[in-house]
Amino acid sequence: MHSLLLAAGAGHERIPVLLAVLALIVVGAKLGVALATRLGQPAVLGELLAGLLLGNLALLGGPDLRGLLVSEALLLLAEMGAVLLLFKVGLESTPQEMLAVGGRALVVAVAGVITPMALGFGVGELMRADEPWMLHAFLGAMLAATSVGITARVLADAGALQTPAARIILGAAVIDDVLGLIVLAVVSGIITAAATGVALAPAAIAWIVAKAVLFLVGALVLGGLVVPRLFKTALALPPGGVSAALALGICLLFSYLAARAGLAPIVGAFAAGLVLEETHAADHVARGEKPLEEALAPLAAFLVPVFFVRMGMLVDVSAFASASVIAFALVLTLAAVIGKQVCGLFAPRGVSGLTIGIGMMPRGEVGLIFAGIGAQLMVAGRPVVDAGTYAAAVFMVMATTVATPPLLLWALRRSQGPSR
Amino acid sequence: MHSLLLAAGAGHERIPVLLAVLALIVVGAKLGVALATRLGQPAVLGELLAGLLLGNLALLGGPDLRGLLVSEALLLLAEMGAVLLLFKVGLESTPQEMLAVGGRALVVAVAGVITPMALGFGVGELMRADEPWMLHAFLGAMLAATSVGITARVLADAGALQTPAARIILGAAVIDDVLGLIVLAVVSGIITAAATGVALAPAAIAWIVAKAVLFLVGALVLGGLVVPRLFKTALALPPGGVSAALALGICLLFSYLAARAGLAPIVGAFAAGLVLEETHAADHVARGEKPLEEALAPLAAFLVPVFFVRMGMLVDVSAFASASVIAFALVLTLAAVIGKQVCGLFAPRGVSGLTIGIGMMPRGEVGLIFAGIGAQLMVAGRPVVDAGTYAAAVFMVMATTVATPPLLLWALRRSQGPSR
Repeated sequence: MHSLLLAAGAGHERIPVLLAVLALIVVGAKLGVALATRLGQPAVLGELLAGLLLGNLALLGGPDLRGLLVSEALLLLAEMGAVLLLFKVGLESTPQEMLAVGGRALVVAVAGVITPMALGFGVGELMRADEPWMLHAFLGAMLAATSVGITARVLADAGALQTPAARIILGAAVIDDVLGLIVLAVVSGIITAAATGVALAPAAIAWIVAKAVLFLVGALVLGGLVVPRLFKTALALPPGGVSAALALGICLLFSYLAARAGLAPIVGAFAAGLVLEETHAADHVARGEKPLEEALAPLAAFLVPVFFVRMGMLVDVSAFASASVIAFALVLTLAAVIGKQVCGLFAPRGVSGLTIGIGMMPRGEVGLIFAGIGAQLMVAGRPVVDAGTYAAAVFMVMATTVATPPLLLWALRRSQGPSR
Repeated sequence: MHSLLLAAGAGHERIPVLLAVLALIVVGAKLGVALATRLGQPAVLGELLAGLLLGNLALLGGPDLRGLLVSEALLLLAEMGAVLLLFKVGLESTPQEMLAVGGRALVVAVAGVITPMALGFGVGELMRADEPWMLHAFLGAMLAATSVGITARVLADAGALQTPAARIILGAAVIDDVLGLIVLAVVSGIITAAATGVALAPAAIAWIVAKAVLFLVGALVLGGLVVPRLFKTALALPPGGVSAALALGICLLFSYLAARAGLAPIVGAFAAGLVLEETHAADHVARGEKPLEEALAPLAAFLVPVFFVRMGMLVDVSAFASASVIAFALVLTLAAVIGKQVCGLFAPRGVSGLTIGIGMMPRGEVGLIFAGIGAQLMVAGRPVVDAGTYAAAVFMVMATTVATPPLLLWALRRSQGPSR
């Protein structure tokens, strides 16, 4: 029992410093967002920049905060941020909506996954020939997934959510996310198997895909049956944050289950969001509780920036000192842009292919999550995604994120013609 | 750079399990609160019970979740909960209000600190004669501080916040908190010094007290000058959560500075709350932002239960298997109740001494924080507060917390006479 109480106090010494770092993250993110907003850029860019600055204070003679990235505490807060973000994205669409945009969105999504993957792999083979093929595979995976969050936000800000192009972009971006996450599971699985010295049998690859599909189908079907009943049952509890606590509990539980199924926690959070609808909480809202998204928004407002600032902190600016890293970052960004323009070729008649191609362009959080996971996968004592490639990947994400809002606005206006 | 990226991934394996534990904490706390509410008990009791259950699942054949208490991540979330709670308590009063209740509250507070400390020390000398004097000192400190949060909530729920008795209780409880925290700093300092083998010189004790006072005065005076200007300057940022982020940043920064001054982070959070007033954010609220307390409430609603559930998890139920622990818990509770009744002797004419004595009774979070810190202080490889004493302290906190609401209601009605 003594050892237990001792253990309960372990790491207590670092808590005040972590509180100070959180203060820097909270205020730094706000300043970064203010700067980005002033420059007409999306908020996520400002948070990445704040993290970049905080993580590289040592270059300016400040303290080396990057040492704190080892903290499980900061990692958990950041992971919760990613989980809440994907939960929110899932919450904003239904399984039915995903099915309704159907065929066209699926074709656009598949084209928008395969082409960038091939380009990313090719760029790796050409410019990172000395690195193992696993890095090339990861580069492909990193370029695959569109950031549905950034896309949706830009379309909403432009008041264009109800255009045919927007519906196809959003549908395809959602499918893209799922495809990208399956790709990630397969690539990680192959690499993990390789790291332990065995080749991954085709049956094992099939099992990874099957587990991912089984989890998604199971979560959507079983979840679709159980979740509404849970909200009904929870009406027996006295009102006051009941629906928000239940939604958060389901989101966290699904994240855990996804990880148990070999997927990333964010896949589970996204599935939980798809299953959950605001209508499930309607009776709770009638009792005076807030709608789910509104209730969870302040928590997300604290945790999501922790994720993006921490991601920015991971970037070692000194990695850009090499001309080869800069060249690599530019070529990777070019591959990312070209890869998604192929989506435009599958636009239906009367819908601007250019708009769709640009709308699918931003990589945002999912690309960063891929890069982060790649940086954590160890093969022969080295991370699959090295610091230079990580820096290039973050550059690619930042560049596609910065370029999308003005370009998409321009494409939307152009396709609507001079009548506007 | 490779080792950096590796380090960034350290502990990643445990993240999904922590997400699952957080799901259990969020839902378990809500169920516990529902049960407590149904039984007419305060919410905090339900959260402690939920933690007690989660921490002792192994006794019921379930998994041993108490092993996860070593996690720095859970500790940081819990500490942030305690910090936000004390910040909120501080936010609800001003330095001026503390001065206004003045002399009478100070006398009540001092009597309500000295008597329970003497009783706690005496109980330790009698019933824990084999343990070092440090434990006895900690028992005294644990009994000292009234839980201003629980007291205020009970008075508010009873609609009695504006009675003379309530004003004296709240003023004294706030002073009590500060006195208690100074007591804690002195006791911890003496014990830490003893642990390193040197006796603490009187000058060193004076320095501990001076540091605490200097921090509080500095935080209140300097903070009082700087904080309103910070909120004015922040009006230059585009609106949207600016005031909440600034308040949270200030709260976390003060917590860090308090720890640097040798105090607990919660002292800093409380000082930040005292300095901050809703009026500082008035211009931000006029721009469409929420008032500070409303803006931070959802974050507190998530983090505060993590603190209390984790505190409950720390209780090893098997520690109660010993009759001596049960007897000790009962005597400690008796000392806690009697110690605060002395406060009633200093009630002014026309104010019920019984009401004041009962109102000062609940120990709540501060007592638990003391017990937790004592459990983390190591002397000669053993924690100062052993598991049995910790269990007895939690019993004392729970008993005074449970007993206060009904007793205080009864005393309020009795003092208002049969006219009501």
